[in-house]
Amino acid sequence: MRILSGLQPTGRLHIGNYFGMMQPALQLQHEGDAYYFIADYHSLTVIHNAAELRDNVYNLAIDFLACGLDPNKSTFFRQSDVPEHTELAWILSCVTPVPMLENAHSYKDKTARGFTPSTGLFTYPVLMAADILIYDSDIVPVGKDQKQHLEIARDIATKMNLTFGENTLKLPTARIREASAIVPGLDGQKMSKSYGNTISLFEDEKLLKKKIMRIVTDATPVEDPKPTEGSFILQLYRLVANDTEYDELVADFQRGGTGYGDFKKRLLSKLWDFFAEAREQRETILAKPGYVEDVLQHGASKARAVARQTIDRVRDAVGLSSAK
Amino acid sequence: MRILSGLQPTGRLHIGNYFGMMQPALQLQHEGDAYYFIADYHSLTVIHNAAELRDNVYNLAIDFLACGLDPNKSTFFRQSDVPEHTELAWILSCVTPVPMLENAHSYKDKTARGFTPSTGLFTYPVLMAADILIYDSDIVPVGKDQKQHLEIARDIATKMNLTFGENTLKLPTARIREASAIVPGLDGQKMSKSYGNTISLFEDEKLLKKKIMRIVTDATPVEDPKPTEGSFILQLYRLVANDTEYDELVADFQRGGTGYGDFKKRLLSKLWDFFAEAREQRETILAKPGYVEDVLQHGASKARAVARQTIDRVRDAVGLSSAK
Repeated sequence: MRILSGLQPTGRLHIGNYFGMMQPALQLQHEGDAYYFIADYHSLTVIHNAAELRDNVYNLAIDFLACGLDPNKSTFFRQSDVPEHTELAWILSCVTPVPMLENAHSYKDKTARGFTPSTGLFTYPVLMAADILIYDSDIVPVGKDQKQHLEIARDIATKMNLTFGENTLKLPTARIREASAIVPGLDGQKMSKSYGNTISLFEDEKLLKKKIMRIVTDATPVEDPKPTEGSFILQLYRLVANDTEYDELVADFQRGGTGYGDFKKRLLSKLWDFFAEAREQRETILAKPGYVEDVLQHGASKARAVARQTIDRVRDAVGLSSAK
Repeated sequence: MRILSGLQPTGRLHIGNYFGMMQPALQLQHEGDAYYFIADYHSLTVIHNAAELRDNVYNLAIDFLACGLDPNKSTFFRQSDVPEHTELAWILSCVTPVPMLENAHSYKDKTARGFTPSTGLFTYPVLMAADILIYDSDIVPVGKDQKQHLEIARDIATKMNLTFGENTLKLPTARIREASAIVPGLDGQKMSKSYGNTISLFEDEKLLKKKIMRIVTDATPVEDPKPTEGSFILQLYRLVANDTEYDELVADFQRGGTGYGDFKKRLLSKLWDFFAEAREQRETILAKPGYVEDVLQHGASKARAVARQTIDRVRDAVGLSSAK
């Protein structure tokens, strides 16, 4: 069973990304033949700065490897190392009706906000369909907001098969991810770069302490029981502690007699420990120059071999040259 | 000076195509470093039948070679043998505003006729821009109807250079072709497959005779002078005869005493002779199995080396992986 997952190189990851996106993605490698690609072609629709894009791709790769992506078990690569994605996208675009893309939620949302969309932004569901279909993917885990994109990919594959023969492309199945727990930021809003309330995955220890101490709390006196409902400290602790530890902290909240400062220190310590192994892994990776690129190239050559089989099959079905 | 010319594999060529498109295209090889590509990726927007597309491509290649395209002098290849076109198209699409394509005449014309356009049809000016820009083309000869597409290519290149650095892409220059003489068909309308009034480039001799004899004429008696204005016989003769021969035929029209049947025979003979060398060449080519494919592969490897330089430069400028 081949599972495909695209990773957006949008910038340095924070722990909101970790629990929302990375942790579920990393679990896929234990469930089947997982293909992870860093979607740098897609990022060109938003990032128009070469250094920034390269930096994002590199850091995303490091972060995933540090957090446990096993490149020997899974196939981990950069989308732009397999340019066959763009070739398949062109072919697919020839059977994709314009209205199908006009009706895509994400496009409507973006144009409704009033900016002039690029053609890449308009057609990116077609590239996404190519990303999926070129690996004969069985399963594509998607959030609810991306469910429509997978439906578009299935519609396009169906249209291709009707037009050019029934085994031209394999229809993928969506696996809709449960809405992931919203990770609160330092101010209690959803953790997000745009709110400036994030904790980085590999935060410097001193800075991390400062940030944790800044978490917004109420004015309950030290001796009184603290409200557990809506506590951002508890919400964050829930993510990094085991059940017993979590229950203990809840009990201490309810008992009273401990100030928020102490709770924050317990959170800090747990959070620091939670990412200890990843931090160590990261140091190991950074100490090996060329390692990340080697991993990505190895993944790309594996992915490209599969992509070539599909593109050859499709080229043959639609009547492009087959000699190579 | 590099001159680029794209050839549409839309079906068997007729002499209207020869004089309207092929003859001017063939002259380019004497004017500079001509690149001719058979635009099969583009054809996917209209042809959804693998055998038909392959057949069209193969026959277009034979016809051009038979009519004098010299593959040692020029670079002659199939677009789909250089998939870098589609990769560049994706990158360009990320700086191409949707309204630029919505305003393209060809798209507006097609949607005005009421059919649901495919995404490929909508975005094909971007692929066309990639076709041009990937070879650092200096000159692109276009008909008036395609002037806008070249302007789009220039606009996109300008946008790329502003965004990613001034030498990312080379701006091509259009050379607007004079409106070519409209070649009349057997019924006097413009020669066109859709009117069923065509003479094939390599028509069977008997069928050619039958067709020429069908050319519509007026009812002027044999002994009277014939009107030269609006004579389809003269219009066709003009294309295949030299000036002296043409003047002689005009004089014979004006003198009277000769029937249209005789004039048609003279046209037939000239037309047959005009394509004699091409016919012979064609037989030679057909007698060498694999020759056409060899020529196209040779051209593709030359073209691809140039395309790779450009795509590597562009990938570097936009921040995609540079290792390969």
